[in-house]
Amino acid sequence: MAPPWSIEEVSKHGDATSCWLIIKNEVYDVTEFLSKHPGGPSIILKYAGCDATSAYEPIHPPDAIQQYLSPSQHLGALKGADVRDLQAQERQRKRTQDEIRVEQAMKQRPPLNRILNLADMETVARKVLPHGALAFFSAGTEDELTLRENARAFERFFFHARVMRPVSKCDPSTKILGFNSSLPVFVSGASTAKLGHPLGELNITRGCGSANIIQMVCTYASIPRAVIAAAALPSQTLFFQLYKSTDLSVATKLVQDAEQLGFKAIFLTVDAIVITTRERDVRSPWVLEAHEGKTQYYVEGDTDETTNFLGTSSLHVNRNNILDADMSWKVTIPWLRSITKLPIILKGIQCVEDAVLATEMGVEGILLSNHGAFQTEISSLPPLEVLYKIRQQRPDVFNKLEGQPIKGGIRRGTDVIKAICLGAKAVGLGRPFLYALSAYGEVGVSKLINILEREIVTSMRLLGAAKISDLTPELIERVEWEPMSRQWKL
Amino acid sequence: MAPPWSIEEVSKHGDATSCWLIIKNEVYDVTEFLSKHPGGPSIILKYAGCDATSAYEPIHPPDAIQQYLSPSQHLGALKGADVRDLQAQERQRKRTQDEIRVEQAMKQRPPLNRILNLADMETVARKVLPHGALAFFSAGTEDELTLRENARAFERFFFHARVMRPVSKCDPSTKILGFNSSLPVFVSGASTAKLGHPLGELNITRGCGSANIIQMVCTYASIPRAVIAAAALPSQTLFFQLYKSTDLSVATKLVQDAEQLGFKAIFLTVDAIVITTRERDVRSPWVLEAHEGKTQYYVEGDTDETTNFLGTSSLHVNRNNILDADMSWKVTIPWLRSITKLPIILKGIQCVEDAVLATEMGVEGILLSNHGAFQTEISSLPPLEVLYKIRQQRPDVFNKLEGQPIKGGIRRGTDVIKAICLGAKAVGLGRPFLYALSAYGEVGVSKLINILEREIVTSMRLLGAAKISDLTPELIERVEWEPMSRQWKL
Amino acid sequence: MAPPWSIEEVSKHGDATSCWLIIKNEVYDVTEFLSKHPGGPSIILKYAGCDATSAYEPIHPPDAIQQYLSPSQHLGALKGADVRDLQAQERQRKRTQDEIRVEQAMKQRPPLNRILNLADMETVARKVLPHGALAFFSAGTEDELTLRENARAFERFFFHARVMRPVSKCDPSTKILGFNSSLPVFVSGASTAKLGHPLGELNITRGCGSANIIQMVCTYASIPRAVIAAAALPSQTLFFQLYKSTDLSVATKLVQDAEQLGFKAIFLTVDAIVITTRERDVRSPWVLEAHEGKTQYYVEGDTDETTNFLGTSSLHVNRNNILDADMSWKVTIPWLRSITKLPIILKGIQCVEDAVLATEMGVEGILLSNHGAFQTEISSLPPLEVLYKIRQQRPDVFNKLEGQPIKGGIRRGTDVIKAICLGAKAVGLGRPFLYALSAYGEVGVSKLINILEREIVTSMRLLGAAKISDLTPELIERVEWEPMSRQWKL
Amino acid sequence: MAPPWSIEEVSKHGDATSCWLIIKNEVYDVTEFLSKHPGGPSIILKYAGCDATSAYEPIHPPDAIQQYLSPSQHLGALKGADVRDLQAQERQRKRTQDEIRVEQAMKQRPPLNRILNLADMETVARKVLPHGALAFFSAGTEDELTLRENARAFERFFFHARVMRPVSKCDPSTKILGFNSSLPVFVSGASTAKLGHPLGELNITRGCGSANIIQMVCTYASIPRAVIAAAALPSQTLFFQLYKSTDLSVATKLVQDAEQLGFKAIFLTVDAIVITTRERDVRSPWVLEAHEGKTQYYVEGDTDETTNFLGTSSLHVNRNNILDADMSWKVTIPWLRSITKLPIILKGIQCVEDAVLATEMGVEGILLSNHGAFQTEISSLPPLEVLYKIRQQRPDVFNKLEGQPIKGGIRRGTDVIKAICLGAKAVGLGRPFLYALSAYGEVGVSKLINILEREIVTSMRLLGAAKISDLTPELIERVEWEPMSRQWKL
Repeated sequence: MAPPWSIEEVSKHGDATSCWLIIKNEVYDVTEFLSKHPGGPSIILKYAGCDATSAYEPIHPPDAIQQYLSPSQHLGALKGADVRDLQAQERQRKRTQDEIRVEQAMKQRPPLNRILNLADMETVARKVLPHGALAFFSAGTEDELTLRENARAFERFFFHARVMRPVSKCDPSTKILGFNSSLPVFVSGASTAKLGHPLGELNITRGCGSANIIQMVCTYASIPRAVIAAAALPSQTLFFQLYKSTDLSVATKLVQDAEQLGFKAIFLTVDAIVITTRERDVRSPWVLEAHEGKTQYYVEGDTDETTNFLGTSSLHVNRNNILDADMSWKVTIPWLRSITKLPIILKGIQCVEDAVLATEMGVEGILLSNHGAFQTEISSLPPLEVLYKIRQQRPDVFNKLEGQPIKGGIRRGTDVIKAICLGAKAVGLGRPFLYALSAYGEVGVSKLINILEREIVTSMRLLGAAKISDLTPELIERVEWEPMSRQWKL
Repeated sequence: MAPPWSIEEVSKHGDATSCWLIIKNEVYDVTEFLSKHPGGPSIILKYAGCDATSAYEPIHPPDAIQQYLSPSQHLGALKGADVRDLQAQERQRKRTQDEIRVEQAMKQRPPLNRILNLADMETVARKVLPHGALAFFSAGTEDELTLRENARAFERFFFHARVMRPVSKCDPSTKILGFNSSLPVFVSGASTAKLGHPLGELNITRGCGSANIIQMVCTYASIPRAVIAAAALPSQTLFFQLYKSTDLSVATKLVQDAEQLGFKAIFLTVDAIVITTRERDVRSPWVLEAHEGKTQYYVEGDTDETTNFLGTSSLHVNRNNILDADMSWKVTIPWLRSITKLPIILKGIQCVEDAVLATEMGVEGILLSNHGAFQTEISSLPPLEVLYKIRQQRPDVFNKLEGQPIKGGIRRGTDVIKAICLGAKAVGLGRPFLYALSAYGEVGVSKLINILEREIVTSMRLLGAAKISDLTPELIERVEWEPMSRQWKL
Repeated sequence: MAPPWSIEEVSKHGDATSCWLIIKNEVYDVTEFLSKHPGGPSIILKYAGCDATSAYEPIHPPDAIQQYLSPSQHLGALKGADVRDLQAQERQRKRTQDEIRVEQAMKQRPPLNRILNLADMETVARKVLPHGALAFFSAGTEDELTLRENARAFERFFFHARVMRPVSKCDPSTKILGFNSSLPVFVSGASTAKLGHPLGELNITRGCGSANIIQMVCTYASIPRAVIAAAALPSQTLFFQLYKSTDLSVATKLVQDAEQLGFKAIFLTVDAIVITTRERDVRSPWVLEAHEGKTQYYVEGDTDETTNFLGTSSLHVNRNNILDADMSWKVTIPWLRSITKLPIILKGIQCVEDAVLATEMGVEGILLSNHGAFQTEISSLPPLEVLYKIRQQRPDVFNKLEGQPIKGGIRRGTDVIKAICLGAKAVGLGRPFLYALSAYGEVGVSKLINILEREIVTSMRLLGAAKISDLTPELIERVEWEPMSRQWKL
Repeated sequence: MAPPWSIEEVSKHGDATSCWLIIKNEVYDVTEFLSKHPGGPSIILKYAGCDATSAYEPIHPPDAIQQYLSPSQHLGALKGADVRDLQAQERQRKRTQDEIRVEQAMKQRPPLNRILNLADMETVARKVLPHGALAFFSAGTEDELTLRENARAFERFFFHARVMRPVSKCDPSTKILGFNSSLPVFVSGASTAKLGHPLGELNITRGCGSANIIQMVCTYASIPRAVIAAAALPSQTLFFQLYKSTDLSVATKLVQDAEQLGFKAIFLTVDAIVITTRERDVRSPWVLEAHEGKTQYYVEGDTDETTNFLGTSSLHVNRNNILDADMSWKVTIPWLRSITKLPIILKGIQCVEDAVLATEMGVEGILLSNHGAFQTEISSLPPLEVLYKIRQQRPDVFNKLEGQPIKGGIRRGTDVIKAICLGAKAVGLGRPFLYALSAYGEVGVSKLINILEREIVTSMRLLGAAKISDLTPELIERVEWEPMSRQWKL
């Protein structure tokens, strides 16, 4: 048997003992890869022996499969007649109710000038995103309380606005890890962006370039990092976010490639060492099924599929060998230091104790975050509260680290300013950028930055602050009462 | 007159002066027993002179009546022709709207793999349980505020998650009173389970056996304790929960039988010495009546029937001589010690003072609980708050007692971990197991344990804890603000 | 001109210069009385020259008009033919939609045994009361926040329940100002009861007699005090509530009559010196108009009728000369002491400072109350919070006064117990008794007392308290978090 | 080319290079004025070459255009025939759905005597105001949380009401900056009133005159200040509110004109130095469009029109040269002092530090305000909380300044009293007066004052206070719990 392959031949390799896939008219043998797939084997097995292109494309860079498979596992092309068969099938496929809904919603988007704030942007994105993509972007872990608490934390802080200070000239620019930024804001944690727009993370790269905003690019970006780096302006700064794999060679290659591509810092994620049950996401296909009237309820054995198309739960022994759950201060940081000259920032610090430890272990910075409530469990303290605790208990941390950004729950320019007043160098936003590019592509990203700039500058003026260094702890207090909630639609 | 009896003859014994019942085609004289019935006399009198099988079966072990009555009170069998009459009546009985609803709901249960958390399980149970059984399982006392406060208490505690600690191997197993348990969780207070499933508490026994989870079996279990003990695996641990009766011989026999059957500890309930008005439960038949369009309102004298089919209210002098309302530290504990070698745990401690007293009186453990808000009045402090108070005021208590489990309001793996962090050895769950077995029987129980295991292990990893002893008070704080509520459907 | 009078003749006296009324077929000249009417002149002027019986009867004792008018102002009887005319008119009068609604609602009341708690009783009362009577009974001042806060205060206090204490015998009886009471509860502030039931306050007197509960009878009771006193059992205790008029002779007569009728204490109201705008009550006729489709909106001059049929607002100078707004510690208490030997209790103390002052001025007791939010403005501290402040700041007050009852917001037996734990001798209830008698008359009152007794005794047992003196401050704490609300329907 | 002008000729000047307008049949060249328009150029450009009368009239004094333009920019009259054309067009114009709605609502207003409180007044105003006017009056910045928090702050303060104090005579009059006022209340910040009523701010002047209440007149009043001054009674006090322009000559003329017209104090606004995005207001035309079924959604370039008809956002450099964003303590106050002898009050102080600074800089008073949440960003502390902080931290401020009024969120007489108890000399109300005049004109304003007077006097009496100086800090406390909200409809 040799290429080109027929669909019939491929279909004979339909289980874990021999698992072939068709992706963009090429045939691959993924049998050995099954156990190494970051998203777990079960999602691949759903397509065993079949064409997996529609599931593969929106969430992977085009070159992902080549990177992970050896050349011998790339079996060759599909037969031309069978390619035409697949195309005909695709043409004749009846569009789902969800696809029809999305197409309508895209036509009815309001003009950009009616997007006044980040909530407006999210509202549009929620209408135009496919159901599954929305579930993936918006879901938080379990009851999604952390998601809400992250945002509510900002509402407890009020300003002591100062008057009679000259502010007609007002400069919100700053430096993040020594790199210029036009605002104390950067893009963090926005990956898998092709789910929302065909150009994926490139929309962010382009929107940020002209606005001089730094983008942190994720290990699991759906656009190849090389393509993103090539799309960046010469002056544009990119950071690299690392999910450390257990396979040291994989991790090393990722870091060294990033350094070579010109990324300027490594953000090592330390808070997402296991995959949690993002219930909204897991339920997503079932909800859709119910909408489309296809639900057939019956009781069978407990097959325990608490998986979405990206993850799988693991128990006592971490079966998912992609994420390294055994990182440690003593081993992981020296290793990372040994393979790169880039500054190292720990992404996902959640308490004062670990912030202090980080200063002692000599990293260049920490990012206070609970993964946007995306990965960590409920009841993790909101990052703003952790920041406040550091301010109260260990303000020396602010002097010892170059970067102490914060992430999670930021939705207004005043939110950004509150974090800066308490000592953060900058503020990362993730979901808002995914919503912006899903709703309007690159101009959506630009618009988002415009809104943040307008809100930040206006608020700085009203606080009597003409530059970032005027934003000091004296301008802010945490009140004793429970403020009303913005009732942000989550 | 002699057996076999006719229905006509039985019907002549229809009041408190002479009260006969037919149960499973046998005739009993319960005249003397009326005042000793744990559920009070009025519910029996409703069936005086009649067939009481349908009311008796779901809430009693089959052998209950033999245990409580003397042989002479068992009058003998019903006539064969009359047995057939009763069977014909039963066959011709029109099913109630509620029975039809339940049957439909059973068919529409989602498959088990769609049950992601304990709330999902409860949602199914609420749909498939008969109206009265649901009211009985779910009701809390009076306004049910304690029920809600028990659960809300967990939401006030947030974690200080630690990172960079090796957790790929994570072991949630522990010992409870010296007995192995695969999780810091046990089954507590789930009785009368036949209301929800014909196999009753046996579903729990079987589901727990393979998972190595300890079951506490209630005095009022609806399956005979001997049957439960026989169904347990050789390695399986069972505890016995004791409602102490005023009749010392009854209480002594219960304890000694339990010891002989291999139960490993006695949990003496101290917080349920009188029966309170669980209003939702009391109203249950009236609500059903209204649903079925049978309500006839009229004003009559005040007959004060604040009773459900299990209880009756009692006033200045405790007329209900089943529950001993005169237990005391000085008398009750030495008595119990004198009749058994099993460890003694006081179930229902609700304040620091009594926790300290318990250490001084030499019991082996205490169970912090307000009876799941099932029996005690509103405004009893949530058990988690009592635990927190002990941690703050008298941490020495934790060293002096073997077991300090807690019960009430636990619905997530993080809830379990919070209690363990604050010092509890283990956590008891009651209602969730009743919901699980009502919804899916034994596999529902197994599923529930699987969910708890997944949630506990995932959260331990994210907290940087690889074993139970890593869960320390430093990992947790009670926040000063009011967190959002899970809005658990109660 | 001489009696008997014709309707036509009466109708000529239709304004403030000469104002006659027909009441129960007798004719009165109330011209001079207009300015002395406790409810203000405007309500009388609405009936000037007309038959006012239907407005007069539900809210006055039958003898009220004789007491206030001189014999010469009683002009004599109406002509027989005109009496018959009035009766014919009444017979032919079309019943209003509200009267029809009430009659239906009375027929559909649930049987008394379905009334499980005070909320159930209120629910029935809200259905069977005429619209205006309900507005009058239920309204609080302005936004009714005080009404709600009074009740919510109880929810902030939680118990430290004690176990292993003998409580099978449990005695909730106590003494109030030295008089026996079967419960630490008395009837306070329930007047104008004829609006809800033709026998008015007599329902309370009779219901309390057999239950040995003390009734405080209001200055404005709608049943003559002599009739109430006559209906009381020989052993029954009655207290007298005094609204002090500016006319000393009126006030003196009221007190001395009460003493002679056998009342045992004088509760001098000090918190209702002006009439506030109970907006729900003022709006009541307009709301009814709208329901009946009679609303005709038009803009006219501002006639400022913020009056209901009982009150009128007064501004800079208190035009309402019935309530004495110039009482003082130095003058009023010695005066009252000089005219009666009965113990004096100040009803309406709202802060610690005045509680302390009261001990210094030598009264026998104080009643912590903000008039059930009925009369005083919003933002008066809830009585339970005042009690708690006294307990914290000046516990000596509890030793210096015979009676320190509390009133306002009590709806559960646990509420009563919380007040007792904090130091109150007893607890007064007002609205709940009005609702009970409106719903079911005397048996409603008895039922209410039964419910309170059951709830109090049950809760005492569960707290480990066998008698009232066991209810100590150690059993209670005010928690730091915001408990859930009972969502009592207000 | 010379006047009179034809519509056709005017229409040739339709952009920023040459921009003519027709206003009340006169033609103006506003090309040079575009950049000086307080509301920004874009709103003018919408009417370039057209008749702008309908947009101009409701929000400008009739003489505004003459004041801002040089005589040569007033080009002369429109041709008579074209005037008639415009009139015919106006007559034939189809009324909008909103105009029809407003006309109906005006007919259905309730009579004034049914307006019991400020909420009632607002309810009527919300019904009778045109959509855009309501959005302008009611909008707060961004999420409008500050608007709500301003009001909620009052709910946290409770009274310690005192009893047994003579209050039948009760005098609520006071002095504000040395001027008599019948209540501790003045009118603040109510401008652009012609949007709600053709007589605009004159309604306030007339309503306040007879009631002896002081009116602060805004720089942007829609009625000429001279007309307002002429309408005032001889004894009536007026204050002048100053928005300082960057053009010193404009600012100086405004202040000196005001002094000459008899205004008695200058309130220099210091908290509105940039225009924020009042989102409800910006959205208002779009919402109306949607109501009228005219919305056409399409995506175009981002033209960023976050402007309403009064404002425009500005970024890094303040393009809006009307508001001076460079005021300072050292320069601005000496300048103002040099051009006027009137007392100077800083309007918009938002923290203790600036209140203290104000005492040191020698101004006569401060007005604690966050611009009614109208202009400043969210998360500015509620003025009542700032007042409370001054009371706690720096009570000396109260002795050093003549006037320390407060503004924002006041809706009840008790709110006024709370601010006075904490140390404010008086309380300013803005929106409530706009609502009153929009709903009922001058009698609405009188009614509003009557309501406040009734509520203030009643509450003073119930607190035991016979005059303003009896309102001391001892009468008030901030409670520790979260009170219920009035749920004022915002």
